Amino acid sequence: MPYAKISIESIAARAKVGKQTIYRWWPSKGAVIVDSFLALSEATTDPESAGSAITLPDTGDLEADLKLVLRATVAEFADRDFEQPIRALTTEIVNDPSLAALYREKLAHPVDEAKKTRLRSAQRAGQLAEDADLELVLEVLYAPLFQRWLYRSGPLTAQYADSLVEATLRAFRP
Amino acid sequence: MPYAKISIESIAARAKVGKQTIYRWWPSKGAVIVDSFLALSEATTDPESAGSAITLPDTGDLEADLKLVLRATVAEFADRDFEQPIRALTTEIVNDPSLAALYREKLAHPVDEAKKTRLRSAQRAGQLAEDADLELVLEVLYAPLFQRWLYRSGPLTAQYADSLVEATLRAFRP
Repeated sequence: MPYAKISIESIAARAKVGKQTIYRWWPSKGAVIVDSFLALSEATTDPESAGSAITLPDTGDLEADLKLVLRATVAEFADRDFEQPIRALTTEIVNDPSLAALYREKLAHPVDEAKKTRLRSAQRAGQLAEDADLELVLEVLYAPLFQRWLYRSGPLTAQYADSLVEATLRAFRP
Repeated sequence: MPYAKISIESIAARAKVGKQTIYRWWPSKGAVIVDSFLALSEATTDPESAGSAITLPDTGDLEADLKLVLRATVAEFADRDFEQPIRALTTEIVNDPSLAALYREKLAHPVDEAKKTRLRSAQRAGQLAEDADLELVLEVLYAPLFQRWLYRSGPLTAQYADSLVEATLRAFRP
């Protein structure tokens, strides 16, 4: 269903509850969407590890590890099943500062922290500049992919993932 | 007015025409938005130069020229008057592939060509790698700024613009 056609009414009908039940818990369609993503991300977190399940591979080779992760991210963005929900989430985030803050705190922040842990390990191993701004490193690595997907402005391929990793490592090598 | 509240009806009322008049020319609210941006971009094009008015400064110093341009872009994104229309445009582009294609062809492509002309000049001057993929260079330069604005995930400052230029030039130096 195209996102503009989804409504609190259609969500309530699908859930077989009255729309007041939905409104009691969520102030808007966007809040429902963000909470769905949050529930999904918690469901995929390993319960054994008490909420700190997100880790990136660390084989000691930063370039190889980032290529693995970025190729998986590219594949996810190119997946048609992922397409509609993430566009719905993005639409809400673009237009609602409070949902953008909720998204950053609950969904983006824990993942970014896991990525930064991997980057700090690379700094200690002398594979990334000690004074690199890790926020900027993550933006240079991921934002081009996100923008290309959002504007549908170019192919999302493993080769593109590799090019992004290589450009990022050239920009922030010791 | 928040974008979700804008409708063909409200556009028609504001323009003092019937809504059928709007529907005769534009299939959707998104099409009205894209055409408004296009009209604005044509209005700011110098009529003397027959449509090829977009050029980037070329003082011979790529780093200085890109910092000037990127600082202006950061200032534009941080401008509250620019905020609502560009969020409206982005919302439409996220959800409508045909509007995304129209945006790329009519608005993004001419600007990107002007930027590439400047980058090619830098390649000839030995300030940028001869084999640099110019699409990728532009993505690394601009996408982090766009994403930071979109998610409201960090400050948009002249210093940030400078950091992006410096990271990009390190990634693609000869």
